[in-house]
Amino acid sequence: MRQATHQLLVETAGQRLYEITREVRSRVAGAGIAEGLLTLFIHHTSASLLIQENADPRVQDDLNAFFRRLVSEDRNLYSHHEEGPDDMPAHIRAALTATQLSIPVAAGRADLGRWQGIFLYEHRAHPHQRRITLHLLGE
Amino acid sequence: MRQATHQLLVETAGQRLYEITREVRSRVAGAGIAEGLLTLFIHHTSASLLIQENADPRVQDDLNAFFRRLVSEDRNLYSHHEEGPDDMPAHIRAALTATQLSIPVAAGRADLGRWQGIFLYEHRAHPHQRRITLHLLGE
Amino acid sequence: MRQATHQLLVETAGQRLYEITREVRSRVAGAGIAEGLLTLFIHHTSASLLIQENADPRVQDDLNAFFRRLVSEDRNLYSHHEEGPDDMPAHIRAALTATQLSIPVAAGRADLGRWQGIFLYEHRAHPHQRRITLHLLGE
Repeated sequence: MRQATHQLLVETAGQRLYEITREVRSRVAGAGIAEGLLTLFIHHTSASLLIQENADPRVQDDLNAFFRRLVSEDRNLYSHHEEGPDDMPAHIRAALTATQLSIPVAAGRADLGRWQGIFLYEHRAHPHQRRITLHLLGE
Repeated sequence: MRQATHQLLVETAGQRLYEITREVRSRVAGAGIAEGLLTLFIHHTSASLLIQENADPRVQDDLNAFFRRLVSEDRNLYSHHEEGPDDMPAHIRAALTATQLSIPVAAGRADLGRWQGIFLYEHRAHPHQRRITLHLLGE
Repeated sequence: MRQATHQLLVETAGQRLYEITREVRSRVAGAGIAEGLLTLFIHHTSASLLIQENADPRVQDDLNAFFRRLVSEDRNLYSHHEEGPDDMPAHIRAALTATQLSIPVAAGRADLGRWQGIFLYEHRAHPHQRRITLHLLGE
């Protein structure tokens, strides 16, 4: 049994999902672990991780529109204003989705379902560089 | 330290929670791992995983009713329609709950709290067969 | 590769976030694992776990206020009443947040982002003692 850790840096430019499946698959393939567990962790509180359908891009748009309706940017609702009107909603959206995902590795690959893609979900309006750790464990 | 992987297939018939605690416990018992970590992963984007109270079944009904109110099936809200009116809401409900759960294993058992059960949460109206991977790690 | 397990008991007194980052860091430091994976699991269905910003405490207040607005305590909405008006909303709030968190360990520390803190999120109004398992794996 052994482990490997990689850092993934993702440049974002606005509130939407960014697919990272290919980058993740490439790191897993390079680690030489046939069977095990892959954990992704995002080191931020205004961006998150999500596994979602990656066939029809409108699924991502509809999902993002839902979160915009659910978490208002009305400043009267919040007391934390210092970092802009999209910051507190971003923290709430992050709390409603995932900071971390663990995915089984089988036959040397992240064992995702046929329609599953891995996404970074950026909740801030302005560009950010986001850091994700990939931790692999197995043999 | 060693690992074991099992597949669990669950037949669903409509939007509700399906308890899988017994099946999970049985696989853990059979793996012979005394202390470790169990990870469940569902290979779908319109069904999810949830740990919830399993004493009063009305908790599951109330939870399901909440998600029906929260995520409308009004087609005017969505652009992704191809797979029926319950499909896009199903993706949103899956994003709000969990695709993956990790549970400590102690004394050869998944160390759940007294009132905790493990559920598959089906978000589609029609019957589906759902695949869950159980990954066990420990010794 | 080796593992270690610790129990953390947290006394809560009302619906809010309780930061546990320091206690978690202290257990990780004591385990002598340089690189690995830390998993936290809460053994309850009316309290949950959350990684959130720990710089401005108003973020926690705004987040908590959002969940109060999102999940009504109106008893007409629920059929499960036996444990008080805040119990069913507590189960829903727990379903919307996390029962479990896995965090990479690097250089002997939980590798959190600069602004990330680990919180127990208590959803019940009355005082409770909550149990969290910390499972460490690595070398």
